[in-house]
Amino acid sequence: MLARIEGPRDLDGLSHEQLDELAAEIRTFLVDAVSKTGGHLGPNLGVVELTIALHRVFDSPKDRVLLDTGHQSYVHKLLTGRQDFARLRAKGGLSGYPSRAESDHDVIENSHASTVLGWADGLAKANEVLEKDDHVVAVIGDGALTGGMAWEALNNIAAAKDRPLVIVVNDNERSYAPTIGGLADHLATLRTTDGYERFLTRTKEVLERTPVVGRPLYETLHGAKKGLKDFIAPQGMFEDLGLKYVGPIDGHDIEALESALTRAKRFGGPVIVHCLTEKGRGYQPAEQDEADRFHGIGPIHPDTGLPIKASAASWTSVFGDEMVKLGRERKDIVAITAAMLQPVGLKKFAEAFPKRVYDVGIAEQHAAVTAAGLATGGLHPVFAVYATFLNRAFDQLLMDVALHKCGVTFVLDRAGVTGDDGASHNGMWDMSILQCVPDLRLAAPRDAEQVRLQLREAVEVDDAPTVVRYSKGVVGPAVPAVGTAGGMDVLRRAGTDTPDVLLVSVGALAPMCLEIASLLDKQGISTTVVDPRWVKPVDEALAPLAEQHRVVVTVEDNGRAGGVGSAIAQALRDAGVDVPLRDFGIPPRFLDHASRKEVMAEIGLTAPDIARQVTGLVSRLDGRFESPGADAVEPARD
Amino acid sequence: MLARIEGPRDLDGLSHEQLDELAAEIRTFLVDAVSKTGGHLGPNLGVVELTIALHRVFDSPKDRVLLDTGHQSYVHKLLTGRQDFARLRAKGGLSGYPSRAESDHDVIENSHASTVLGWADGLAKANEVLEKDDHVVAVIGDGALTGGMAWEALNNIAAAKDRPLVIVVNDNERSYAPTIGGLADHLATLRTTDGYERFLTRTKEVLERTPVVGRPLYETLHGAKKGLKDFIAPQGMFEDLGLKYVGPIDGHDIEALESALTRAKRFGGPVIVHCLTEKGRGYQPAEQDEADRFHGIGPIHPDTGLPIKASAASWTSVFGDEMVKLGRERKDIVAITAAMLQPVGLKKFAEAFPKRVYDVGIAEQHAAVTAAGLATGGLHPVFAVYATFLNRAFDQLLMDVALHKCGVTFVLDRAGVTGDDGASHNGMWDMSILQCVPDLRLAAPRDAEQVRLQLREAVEVDDAPTVVRYSKGVVGPAVPAVGTAGGMDVLRRAGTDTPDVLLVSVGALAPMCLEIASLLDKQGISTTVVDPRWVKPVDEALAPLAEQHRVVVTVEDNGRAGGVGSAIAQALRDAGVDVPLRDFGIPPRFLDHASRKEVMAEIGLTAPDIARQVTGLVSRLDGRFESPGADAVEPARD
Repeated sequence: MLARIEGPRDLDGLSHEQLDELAAEIRTFLVDAVSKTGGHLGPNLGVVELTIALHRVFDSPKDRVLLDTGHQSYVHKLLTGRQDFARLRAKGGLSGYPSRAESDHDVIENSHASTVLGWADGLAKANEVLEKDDHVVAVIGDGALTGGMAWEALNNIAAAKDRPLVIVVNDNERSYAPTIGGLADHLATLRTTDGYERFLTRTKEVLERTPVVGRPLYETLHGAKKGLKDFIAPQGMFEDLGLKYVGPIDGHDIEALESALTRAKRFGGPVIVHCLTEKGRGYQPAEQDEADRFHGIGPIHPDTGLPIKASAASWTSVFGDEMVKLGRERKDIVAITAAMLQPVGLKKFAEAFPKRVYDVGIAEQHAAVTAAGLATGGLHPVFAVYATFLNRAFDQLLMDVALHKCGVTFVLDRAGVTGDDGASHNGMWDMSILQCVPDLRLAAPRDAEQVRLQLREAVEVDDAPTVVRYSKGVVGPAVPAVGTAGGMDVLRRAGTDTPDVLLVSVGALAPMCLEIASLLDKQGISTTVVDPRWVKPVDEALAPLAEQHRVVVTVEDNGRAGGVGSAIAQALRDAGVDVPLRDFGIPPRFLDHASRKEVMAEIGLTAPDIARQVTGLVSRLDGRFESPGADAVEPARD
Repeated sequence: MLARIEGPRDLDGLSHEQLDELAAEIRTFLVDAVSKTGGHLGPNLGVVELTIALHRVFDSPKDRVLLDTGHQSYVHKLLTGRQDFARLRAKGGLSGYPSRAESDHDVIENSHASTVLGWADGLAKANEVLEKDDHVVAVIGDGALTGGMAWEALNNIAAAKDRPLVIVVNDNERSYAPTIGGLADHLATLRTTDGYERFLTRTKEVLERTPVVGRPLYETLHGAKKGLKDFIAPQGMFEDLGLKYVGPIDGHDIEALESALTRAKRFGGPVIVHCLTEKGRGYQPAEQDEADRFHGIGPIHPDTGLPIKASAASWTSVFGDEMVKLGRERKDIVAITAAMLQPVGLKKFAEAFPKRVYDVGIAEQHAAVTAAGLATGGLHPVFAVYATFLNRAFDQLLMDVALHKCGVTFVLDRAGVTGDDGASHNGMWDMSILQCVPDLRLAAPRDAEQVRLQLREAVEVDDAPTVVRYSKGVVGPAVPAVGTAGGMDVLRRAGTDTPDVLLVSVGALAPMCLEIASLLDKQGISTTVVDPRWVKPVDEALAPLAEQHRVVVTVEDNGRAGGVGSAIAQALRDAGVDVPLRDFGIPPRFLDHASRKEVMAEIGLTAPDIARQVTGLVSRLDGRFESPGADAVEPARD
């Protein structure tokens, strides 16, 4: 049946029995497809019925169906003409998130949580100004409601009582892990009002057939609900804010969902539909996995749910193990996660020191500001977070942590090009935006040993923020130093007294930089390779070292704009060292999803590409060197 | 009596009559002092009694008394040994905000709103881990509760039922302007429960004298309250979240405040004390000012409240007037403010087009993301905000606006060194962090005419974010162009065919740059001055122009780290133009409060300072030029 659905309107003619069949078919398809490619399985298994109901009740793309975070968009893709999942998240295949390039049915592409209500508010306001009567419906998880942006949006949405907007809370009691905090407790209270909802369901059919002159049906129903509330349902915070509340609804009952969404759509103001869903629904290995219900997976055996590849030591696990050791040595070290305890490697720490770890919800701002409080209170907090999500906490890092000289360590996982999750998951901004934070120290460890070492150096700093950033996935082999220069590691000596190129290698790109040096060597270009280890501040030993070379080349797994290369160039200028410099990194554009390797090739961040460009530059300088008076053409120095 | 208060403990022996007298004395002091220096008058007049009560009940600095935003800290300063207000906000005088350098009683220095609950959460957790029984009390305005950080913190605070923390909501129904949204409505509902509070006040005295074995007094009282609630008070959202609620309390009744705070302090878990205060209380001109109740003022006549200096045309008013014109010409232009309609110059627009302006509360994240929705819905939003507060919306600007290619214009007011409000008000980060946002275009207009022109150019862009940033205060005289180069304005020609210095002037620094050029001229150094107008992307005409000079100098009113100078240096490198470059801007540190002029002098951003340094550089280059083979020493070019 699924194959016959080419667009949402193909759902119109189906009976509820057929829709239930379709839901089952979609679940089988998802397990089959995602077990091959990897992807977000659990979240999508949870929203099969909800997505069907949304597309039955609303007329996308005229009506805007908005999905928060977007990893739950697979069912939506299947219902909007995209059923080739063979290359999901691979180059040229479907994105793992909504994508405007793929379909007019997709609106929000970025995967950063809690944004959907703000988008919905804007789209609803635009409809109002342009006098359109199209509908806007926003789906947000209970986890994403813990993010401050959701609150800011709810506060605004509630202010306009007659601007239509349907908010669907997809309540599976989890973000990645179980949702925490006062809101979660409140939702739990609302969830227990089954009797109340059963009453509504029973009365609904009668009411819907009753004509009410001059008064929308919803109001009637809602009037009944209000009257009942004091007896059965607790008065909820959503209604305190001025938002109509419908629920809780069984999120796997298509008929009930359609009924609730239809009422909400007709209401003519902001309304919350509270749906209860089960992450991983219908797939036993996911249902039984208490850690994350198969939130995001690699390729698995579909029958058992077991991963096909054995997992090797990752950057994350190296960090996680060292945190446990540090926790034993120092009682003042505490850890913070924004709803991602396991993915950022803090699970072992939490098991060892359950009272010294804080899961703050999807709330990076709070993570950073509360870290300032913890540090001021005498502890040393370590906030581990995906690099791309640090952007959410920039102001707090700057104004709360740095301005107040708080010793807080930020550990940025998944830094650099991550690839298959697309534009918004690449951690390519951190080393740019952090450059302007006074006194902040930033480490980019190149291998496992450096992760351990630099983490230890970081938590020693008690009067400024420190940052340790590393890549996604399997950590490479050790890259030994052959010497030091100031605080920097020399990874390769040029082997001549008049070396040509000083190659500055940042973090995990060390093996690539050594390869570049070998390639240059073959061209007769002698190359020194250094790893600054701490890329901010720029090591004072760098300028004198640069002065001994004809060209400085920097290579970083971060955006070029304002990155480490720019900072080094500025430090050299400030030292009066005007040796020509070329900086390699990620170009200033959003990157399409593909494997990390494919993305790196596409943007020219490969050893052969960089070696070729450096060879060209050195040749041009040589050209000048061969001209008359060439001896004097040493780069300007003060 | 005030003069005898050297620290909070000097309040202990005073009777409530004496405290009322003290409050009156403090009000007189504030009006007298602040009318001379300027500063935040209205907010401080509103918290006189509250601050006295806080210091009576809590033992600062052992207990932590935390003030959100901090502009209401004057009374706190007076009670903690700081009564010399003669140089308030001036160099060497008291800061206009809390300051750790001034006093151990000050904890949070930064002026960005909504952070206090996160700080309090961290400090309370630290007390728990370190097994201290000190208290933490956080004062937050109703306006600041509209910020997402407050929500994130409340959600976390509510999760720990037995971690003591007192939250005082200072509810004056305003942030800068009246508070908006669903929360404001809810607070209004809570405020109407006067009868309920009167009942509590009457019963309180009886209850407090009644010994209750094995049960804290608060619980008893709270039990009574709960029982009454269904009849008198609405069940509030704070209790839905799991936070105990006490209130509303008359925030100008010291005895009632002390009683409520004492109960809250003894409670042993998170509790909200809802206090009603009146901004500008006791000073008639402020009480009668509906716009902002004398939120922040310049020097005024204390009797009338009228400003001493007549206001000249400001950058803000030029923008505000042009917006009205644009609004008339284009129906699709809408405006957004984060609770600062008047300060950012949108009041006239709001009067002309009341349905096309959105005050989203202190919610910069929401402002940016809802702008993405508005743009996707077919409008062109203009979000006007202080430059320093844009940091709050960086992720949304990047991931919601830029990634989705939305035509949204950000207007950054108070950019650059603002001076007297101290470190956190300087708008010195924007041109650094925005460099890495793909496709974003950034304008730095140099005078009023350019503000108008560039705003118009900005709103023409419909597929990317645009930013227009300008300074605080009075706009200077027009700086005419004498020619163009690409999209850049040439402000001064060097007057020779072999010019020495290309001076790149950013924004309002144009007059200073022309002065630098004159000074250089006197040294025999010929100088071209260009204003790029759009500093991002770097104009393609810049590299060929740079190549015709021996030195490039950039001057910007923004942090040097990753700023415009760095971007231009990178663009020149990319073009293979290795002319030595020196970039001048704000050094990478937080700046103490002082006048803008004093700050600029201190950091060396003055025409004589820069001219001296450039002269030194050119002399050194000349030194080389005079050496053998000098002809060949033209800076490297490809």
